[in-house]
Amino acid sequence: MNGAQALLRTLVDAGVNVCFGNPGTSEMHFVAALDSVPEMRGILGLFEGVVTGAADGYARMADKPAATLLHLGPGLANGLANLHNARRARTGIVNVVGDHATYHKQYDAPLESDIEALATTVGWTRTSTSTEALAADAVEAVKVAQSGRIATLILPADVSWGDGGAAAAPLAAPVRPTVAENVVHAIVDVLRSGESTVILLGNAGTRERALRAASRISQATGVKLFAETFPTRIERGAGVPAVDRLGYLAEQVTWQLTDVRNLVLAGAKSPVSFFAYPGKASDLVPDNCKVHVLAQPDDDIAAALEAIADVVAPDVEPVLQEAKRPELPQGDLTPQNWVDVIGALLPENAVIVDESNTSGLLLPTATAGAPKHDVLTLTGGSIGFGLPTAVGAAVAVPDRPVICLQADGSAMYTASALWTMAREGLNVTTVVLSNRSYAILKLELQRVGADSTGPKALDWLDLSRPDLDFVSLATAMGVPATRAATAEDLADQFRESLAQPGPHVIEAAIPTLF
Amino acid sequence: MNGAQALLRTLVDAGVNVCFGNPGTSEMHFVAALDSVPEMRGILGLFEGVVTGAADGYARMADKPAATLLHLGPGLANGLANLHNARRARTGIVNVVGDHATYHKQYDAPLESDIEALATTVGWTRTSTSTEALAADAVEAVKVAQSGRIATLILPADVSWGDGGAAAAPLAAPVRPTVAENVVHAIVDVLRSGESTVILLGNAGTRERALRAASRISQATGVKLFAETFPTRIERGAGVPAVDRLGYLAEQVTWQLTDVRNLVLAGAKSPVSFFAYPGKASDLVPDNCKVHVLAQPDDDIAAALEAIADVVAPDVEPVLQEAKRPELPQGDLTPQNWVDVIGALLPENAVIVDESNTSGLLLPTATAGAPKHDVLTLTGGSIGFGLPTAVGAAVAVPDRPVICLQADGSAMYTASALWTMAREGLNVTTVVLSNRSYAILKLELQRVGADSTGPKALDWLDLSRPDLDFVSLATAMGVPATRAATAEDLADQFRESLAQPGPHVIEAAIPTLF
Repeated sequence: MNGAQALLRTLVDAGVNVCFGNPGTSEMHFVAALDSVPEMRGILGLFEGVVTGAADGYARMADKPAATLLHLGPGLANGLANLHNARRARTGIVNVVGDHATYHKQYDAPLESDIEALATTVGWTRTSTSTEALAADAVEAVKVAQSGRIATLILPADVSWGDGGAAAAPLAAPVRPTVAENVVHAIVDVLRSGESTVILLGNAGTRERALRAASRISQATGVKLFAETFPTRIERGAGVPAVDRLGYLAEQVTWQLTDVRNLVLAGAKSPVSFFAYPGKASDLVPDNCKVHVLAQPDDDIAAALEAIADVVAPDVEPVLQEAKRPELPQGDLTPQNWVDVIGALLPENAVIVDESNTSGLLLPTATAGAPKHDVLTLTGGSIGFGLPTAVGAAVAVPDRPVICLQADGSAMYTASALWTMAREGLNVTTVVLSNRSYAILKLELQRVGADSTGPKALDWLDLSRPDLDFVSLATAMGVPATRAATAEDLADQFRESLAQPGPHVIEAAIPTLF
Repeated sequence: MNGAQALLRTLVDAGVNVCFGNPGTSEMHFVAALDSVPEMRGILGLFEGVVTGAADGYARMADKPAATLLHLGPGLANGLANLHNARRARTGIVNVVGDHATYHKQYDAPLESDIEALATTVGWTRTSTSTEALAADAVEAVKVAQSGRIATLILPADVSWGDGGAAAAPLAAPVRPTVAENVVHAIVDVLRSGESTVILLGNAGTRERALRAASRISQATGVKLFAETFPTRIERGAGVPAVDRLGYLAEQVTWQLTDVRNLVLAGAKSPVSFFAYPGKASDLVPDNCKVHVLAQPDDDIAAALEAIADVVAPDVEPVLQEAKRPELPQGDLTPQNWVDVIGALLPENAVIVDESNTSGLLLPTATAGAPKHDVLTLTGGSIGFGLPTAVGAAVAVPDRPVICLQADGSAMYTASALWTMAREGLNVTTVVLSNRSYAILKLELQRVGADSTGPKALDWLDLSRPDLDFVSLATAMGVPATRAATAEDLADQFRESLAQPGPHVIEAAIPTLF
């Protein structure tokens, strides 16, 4: 078998059986080899930002990595923004980046560039230098990805087309490292100190099993719980313990952490301001507050929390969120009422991909008591996350409805994800929150203290002139679409979309908050 | 004045008075400062690939750099693919990339990443560390860009918002280095050797002044002329000396350079194969052919060629292309006849941005005798170049009609450039060559010798299921659009588009060549 065939066989035998890709000439042998490894599903994206975002969404829901196939340095570069988000999500991905044949690189052909330098900015990088070594390199890449990191395997064309490839032995799924007993006991002491304490949950700490243990601890000791600001995947809704997220604005976090003396990190990082602002703090840990690490993001966080709960709350039950939905609202859409439509109609077992940005400020409250669901959030702040991530989530859990709540400005970064939804018949309902502005920047322009806000500045925050028409945009890519002006429209169209298989887009005209 | 104001004033005084951008929070002071420097024109792109491609197109036509404004590492990453093309075009660009405040970087906030590592892959990079130093850093960046390279100035938010900024002294336009006399004389000896010789023209060597000198040399000495395969900007058409480009396929180049004993590089690189193929050569210089360098890409190539012509062809006139257009064809569109429509109707003084890829193989012949025009080509092989480059070209030369010939697959990379065309009212007629496939890859799949072409492989080269509708796509972004099925349709719609101001899109259904 050639290198490409050995690589694909190795990936499949290591549990990586979905590859999102956008190939070029240097990847043609990999593409040709897809037919010889039937277990590998290949999914085409029309832009690499779609490909990498889909791999992120897939891994968040499948709890295992997907592969990507990218075309040399420019292909990787196009995918870096969503790889950045995946890095912040601690989502494992195996990028296969084609390169020129080893002997061809010296000629500095037009597509030559420093692929390793690009890849290293998001994680582990290796260039495979021989067909014989390729399978072992691929195993290393999968191991890295299984540990929640981005692994980039650079595949020179001659290594791919060369003969003498052999698949590696199958690779088992990994086990998360266990938190040491002495660490658990030290945290127990903190929780029993009687001082004001917060447990900050991150990574797998926002999944149901961890939340149940954390809720028991909170009930028994009185400590407060928060989830990190932008969780990779948070399980919530009726029957799951509810936990608030730390706010996006530094002022909110300061308020949430008032008088806290101990901050226990369970898979989360210590809170810092998303951006710097003149005269405002960057480190959001209050003065006189000690930070304690219970678990690193990739540790077995749920087991660590359960170990603590078994000590401090042996007979305590978690407090579960009651089932409770908002009333269906009426009238023109507003930032207040559209979220009530979602809360009122969210189907059982949904996955929400949330890039609603400012339009979605009230979403968590409106959906708190909806049927149990997952929410995937924009972990790295690099916009253009929503639509691609929804693709990957829908591929990972095809039997669950995926709801993509998508701000308009961000949608334009990776809109061609809609085409992949149509081609693959994915059950994704996208609601585009069309407020015709980069609304967050209107807020931020004030917050950074920029003293001039003349017409040229405001022009750059404005997405009208011309207005974007997301119904036409979706239709152009084969996705049925409708437009909602009122809460009643949105409810009708949302119900209808959920009742039909395949993707749908609803453009919801929402006034901007700022 | 604050740092941002000093930076903008410095850029304008150095001749950089257009900034394409897509900002975020860390760039808000730069955005706010736009209103205090009225000479700087700010143009919003909805994705950074549009922003950088526009800067490339602008510089190719304006012969001076534009600035870009990009949001941290992910914003730069999104722009890298078109910066790669600009690097290969030797187009100067000044990227201003916002970063976190200097004191904030230590906190590894969500958007933190290694911006310098990314920027270094495309050129010169500097992080400005104080408001006082910013203007001097900007002057260095502009000097680098004036020399035809990509300059990235990383601008921490506190350096931007800090007080104490002062603009630098105005900077004059640069002068291209002159080729030394002894080099000219050595090349004269080669040209007079009587051996079979080719002059390969690149960079400014494909502009009219250089082409006229090269034509005189060719007439006097019998040497053959070729332009590089993908010129940055080639001036051609009636009244300009015609010169063929080297082929894209290695086989074509081998044929074009048969028996050549001397290859004289005038601003071009020595020819190499675009990709490697099993068993085929990478270096396309024939055996027994000597390579001589007359001029580096950034030298004053026209002056060097004129110096030679003054020696070898003092009384010889250049041979100019006759005016000659194809007949207007009839019938269903084909790869053969759509180019004849363009050749028959190309307006005076047009700029063609050519990302027609396989659909445009016959374009050079069909337009050879059309009125004098410029052609900008895909220098770096990174697709998604056409629409953004057309934006920049139209901004640089607003009185000239810009014709963007755009392959469908590549169009999907940076389609939101259409929105910027609409907002700015740019005179761009885009013809989307819709063959519903990555046709080049169908050819390449065979050429690399991939032995299996099963349904999964072919699926990744196919852009149907669903079909892309470029009329809806353009309309969604405020650009009027029509669809042409026949040569008559295309002619009517092309004429109509040219008669109306502002942008238009024509989707032309072309069968795939492969």
